[in-house]
Amino acid sequence: MSTDWIDKVCWGENGLIPAIAQDATSGVVLMVAWMNREALLETVDSSRAVYWSRSRSQLWRKGEESGHVQRVKEVFIDCDGDVVLLKVDQAGGIACHTGRANCFFRKLEAGDWIVTQPVLVEPNQIYAKS
Amino acid sequence: MSTDWIDKVCWGENGLIPAIAQDATSGVVLMVAWMNREALLETVDSSRAVYWSRSRSQLWRKGEESGHVQRVKEVFIDCDGDVVLLKVDQAGGIACHTGRANCFFRKLEAGDWIVTQPVLVEPNQIYAKS
Repeated sequence: MSTDWIDKVCWGENGLIPAIAQDATSGVVLMVAWMNREALLETVDSSRAVYWSRSRSQLWRKGEESGHVQRVKEVFIDCDGDVVLLKVDQAGGIACHTGRANCFFRKLEAGDWIVTQPVLVEPNQIYAKS
Repeated sequence: MSTDWIDKVCWGENGLIPAIAQDATSGVVLMVAWMNREALLETVDSSRAVYWSRSRSQLWRKGEESGHVQRVKEVFIDCDGDVVLLKVDQAGGIACHTGRANCFFRKLEAGDWIVTQPVLVEPNQIYAKS
């Protein structure tokens, strides 16, 4: 498969772009993380979401510790070529490191961020292996 | 209304965070833009999406030229406090400056980005006023 497509991505000054993971079935926005060129290439090659961890400065194969892998069904890019949208199947139904279904669990209501989702599995159960 | 919530946002080094606009009804991801503190405050205050234009270095009241305003129904923030998700009603059914329904109209297929959405209104019709 040609990789000309990767050269059409407009990487930011830091070599990164935001990547949205959206549930391929429900349309729920699961999370946003960052990708560099290597992460996006591996994502497409493996059909599994791979991000760049800014805090650890290394590739982050989503689910490598938690098992909460994201199988990538479709990959889109926006009009400016600087944001990627992945449609994924989320293993375990948990995308967030807090043990919630997705990362957007805080909603602004009456001047504060209110938690709107339960913890499905406690993080110390998810990451017990590591 | 208290504004303590704004101090819980984790702005990037450049004072910006990504903001996703998602159609409140269909769940379609419409676009991603950037917000600074002022943009998010005005978004919440006006219930209308206001971004920070990095290219113009000024506030961008979405729809100010095109009329394609985004009415904000709900505001979420992610676990790390550094990405905002807006659920919006998209005026005119067109979020993208190319005249398409949303900005994620290019899909990766067989090694290239394929356009998957029609232009609903030609940009020179949308921006004729300016």
